[in-house]
Amino acid sequence: MTTIDTDTRTAASLDVVAAAARRAFAITVASTAAERAAWLTAVADALDANGPELVGLADEESHLGTARLTSELARTTAQLRLFAAAVVEGSYLEATIDHPDPQATPPRPDLRRMLRPLGPVAVFSASNFPFAFAVAGGDTASALAAGCPVIVKGHSAHPRLSARTAEVVTAALAEAGAPAGTFGHVTGRETGVALVQHPEIRAVGFTGSLHGGRALFDLAQGRPDPIPFYGELSAVNPVLITRAALEVRADELAAGLAASFTLGAGQFCTNPGVVLVPAGSRFAERVAAAVGSPAPVPMLTDGIAAAFAAGLEGLAAHDGVRVVTGAPAQRPGAGSAVVLATTTDAVIADSSALLAECFGPSTLIVEYADVDAALAAVRAVGGSLTATVHAEPGEELHEIIAVLTEVAGRVLFAGWPTGVAVSWAQQHGGPWPSTTSIHTSVGVTAMRRFLRPVAFQDAPNAALPPELRDENVLGIPRRIDGVLTLP
Amino acid sequence: MTTIDTDTRTAASLDVVAAAARRAFAITVASTAAERAAWLTAVADALDANGPELVGLADEESHLGTARLTSELARTTAQLRLFAAAVVEGSYLEATIDHPDPQATPPRPDLRRMLRPLGPVAVFSASNFPFAFAVAGGDTASALAAGCPVIVKGHSAHPRLSARTAEVVTAALAEAGAPAGTFGHVTGRETGVALVQHPEIRAVGFTGSLHGGRALFDLAQGRPDPIPFYGELSAVNPVLITRAALEVRADELAAGLAASFTLGAGQFCTNPGVVLVPAGSRFAERVAAAVGSPAPVPMLTDGIAAAFAAGLEGLAAHDGVRVVTGAPAQRPGAGSAVVLATTTDAVIADSSALLAECFGPSTLIVEYADVDAALAAVRAVGGSLTATVHAEPGEELHEIIAVLTEVAGRVLFAGWPTGVAVSWAQQHGGPWPSTTSIHTSVGVTAMRRFLRPVAFQDAPNAALPPELRDENVLGIPRRIDGVLTLP
Repeated sequence: MTTIDTDTRTAASLDVVAAAARRAFAITVASTAAERAAWLTAVADALDANGPELVGLADEESHLGTARLTSELARTTAQLRLFAAAVVEGSYLEATIDHPDPQATPPRPDLRRMLRPLGPVAVFSASNFPFAFAVAGGDTASALAAGCPVIVKGHSAHPRLSARTAEVVTAALAEAGAPAGTFGHVTGRETGVALVQHPEIRAVGFTGSLHGGRALFDLAQGRPDPIPFYGELSAVNPVLITRAALEVRADELAAGLAASFTLGAGQFCTNPGVVLVPAGSRFAERVAAAVGSPAPVPMLTDGIAAAFAAGLEGLAAHDGVRVVTGAPAQRPGAGSAVVLATTTDAVIADSSALLAECFGPSTLIVEYADVDAALAAVRAVGGSLTATVHAEPGEELHEIIAVLTEVAGRVLFAGWPTGVAVSWAQQHGGPWPSTTSIHTSVGVTAMRRFLRPVAFQDAPNAALPPELRDENVLGIPRRIDGVLTLP
Repeated sequence: MTTIDTDTRTAASLDVVAAAARRAFAITVASTAAERAAWLTAVADALDANGPELVGLADEESHLGTARLTSELARTTAQLRLFAAAVVEGSYLEATIDHPDPQATPPRPDLRRMLRPLGPVAVFSASNFPFAFAVAGGDTASALAAGCPVIVKGHSAHPRLSARTAEVVTAALAEAGAPAGTFGHVTGRETGVALVQHPEIRAVGFTGSLHGGRALFDLAQGRPDPIPFYGELSAVNPVLITRAALEVRADELAAGLAASFTLGAGQFCTNPGVVLVPAGSRFAERVAAAVGSPAPVPMLTDGIAAAFAAGLEGLAAHDGVRVVTGAPAQRPGAGSAVVLATTTDAVIADSSALLAECFGPSTLIVEYADVDAALAAVRAVGGSLTATVHAEPGEELHEIIAVLTEVAGRVLFAGWPTGVAVSWAQQHGGPWPSTTSIHTSVGVTAMRRFLRPVAFQDAPNAALPPELRDENVLGIPRRIDGVLTLP
């Protein structure tokens, strides 16, 4: 592993790490699915084997607790193993064969297309998921699965965990036979800036703030050769509760919301930040009752805690907002639950003040007079990772679903958005500013971000990648002359 | 159809067209595959029915000749019909169902994912393909197929053809039942700039120059809400001929190259601009002989002809370049074939001068001492739409293929790159500056550019889009619990 840990050595050292990634790519681009699956599995096994140590480090640096962190590590290694399985299954390659048609005008050549890895990928670790969105998280797993070397910029909120995880990953990859340079680890803000602009980097995966993400996005797009920047930046995750649902199960909904927005001190990108409820329902008070008076919880960083407090104070000082429970003035470094309430008129009149993400354990209950007003408020929220409706069976939801689908990448009909299952059908990404792209950063299809299509025309069979040869030696799904075929 | 044809009315009128597209999207987003297939087929039929008139207009405005234009129109309507078939086939939706798993930790919800249209799309028509990359070309066809309304910015090189094509498309869509606003047509440079920045536009398809494309790309990425910009900008399309191939069939290769680089007065984005041949082979002279002394051909616009002449004069004045045949000083408005020659040392020493796209009927023959030098020159060319190798059976091509695949989206092993078949396996797009993206602008998968994934969590069956309901009523391929299944 090559680690850079001070900004003063940025340029020269980053060049060394990037050159190693480029050399590794010459090998990983031609690696077999079985090889990459073995690499991913080895990383998962090594992380599991070092679990207690890593969880301990993570808890010291993040205050997230060993129960949550143990579960997050398990999710992270399961994620690596899911990608290993998907690589072997092979449909992600979109292998496509069009045989020649000499009768066509003009005659059609033999064309065979598949997806190929882009090249070295930069991954920016997040603070709020020290495992699942960090050094060996979803971005790293999906890029390695695609055949791309990865250079992770570790997060300053957990430097020791980052360095130790990087050591474990590097050793596991080496032992499993991956070429040196397949994985690199760098730290420091200036190094991150240089990383996005480095000529060898072909794509970026980022999870973090809107402000920092936008700055890096602009750098990636402003390069002489722009590269894809997959950023997950900011989300308010609106929830709409119908009158019928509230009449039937107000307490259950209040308890569910209270548990969701306070989970992990509210430090989830899928935190339900705005909840639309019928006017006069006194739902905010029920949520306040469900929250109770919990002790302040240490937040990930003092900076996050300060930003949370500042956001809350701004909201609480707003004419149209009332504080239902909790104190907007927070203890330094900690977060305690706050429930705020307002109306659709207020949020639509001043959406930039009231609908910005407030990262921490707070939620804004917004009372609506009718569904049209509620949907106008959802549209005012804009792009989000998730949008949720709680309704009763038989309710007409057509228009509600249309609007929720327009603003979000995941639409929930029950439950709360804070859980993000890692599976084939998951989508974690939505319209700006929740993400910058039309891709997901969670689930198997996250690999697609780090692949590009290549077509081979009139190639001799032996010159083709194994996936595109006449005989389907790898047994993968392929489209032959327009018809999808299974092995 | 709403047409804007002067820049003085830009802002207000564009708002009208964009608002119509937004209203149409509320309907097209929920349209069925059968409906969209009918719209596409209706457009194809109407274009065919008006073929003679449209080809006549195109020839008057482009000088490309009725034979080429008739064939291009046929390709364009076949392209629309191919997308109609692909929409019905349905695999492009990536429909994915993960059933709930209550045993998982945490319990996994029901998740169902598919691709959904992005919203109104801006399409910038190209000058060099008045049909296939223009008002009803591949970008328009793929966006309509995806369910996105389209606003085309017509090219100033063929204003009457653009307007008439837009009338035919609009009438056909209306008759086939597509909502008003599904298609719009605007003209003028300032309108184009405003279009890319318009809040209702969700993606851009562009085919044109590197300079103009980069400017629009920067505008799209600089928006408060960045949107995908799919630009096809510039390509040199390197060709590598091995010594063995040249020994066996030098005249055939010279004739093939001559036909390819002069096709359509060289105004193809896939024009073979740089051809690497063994030193001492006198291949350039053979190509000159194959070209002969053709009459100058009117080019698409006076501006393109002037840029071609300026590019040639720059190349011819370069120390390391010799003019093999043709006159770098071109007749105004016309292009005549020019063959230039140089060495790998020269192009590597001054790649920005010698390896820029020179849009017109010219090619640069580059002599190499050995394959390593040839591959270094290919790398110096950089990102390209295509890369071609001409070799003999039995030659070791591993390294050559690796480098060609690295720089291009389509790798040819025979023939010449100027033909671009429209099929499932086609790839038209490569590393920057050939395109801005990891997508294709030709072939069925071009639809993917205008789609975004949405996942539905724990949705009642009736609330789901038909494609994701329990029963596979549409008979489309779906992935169920990780397993790809055919209807």
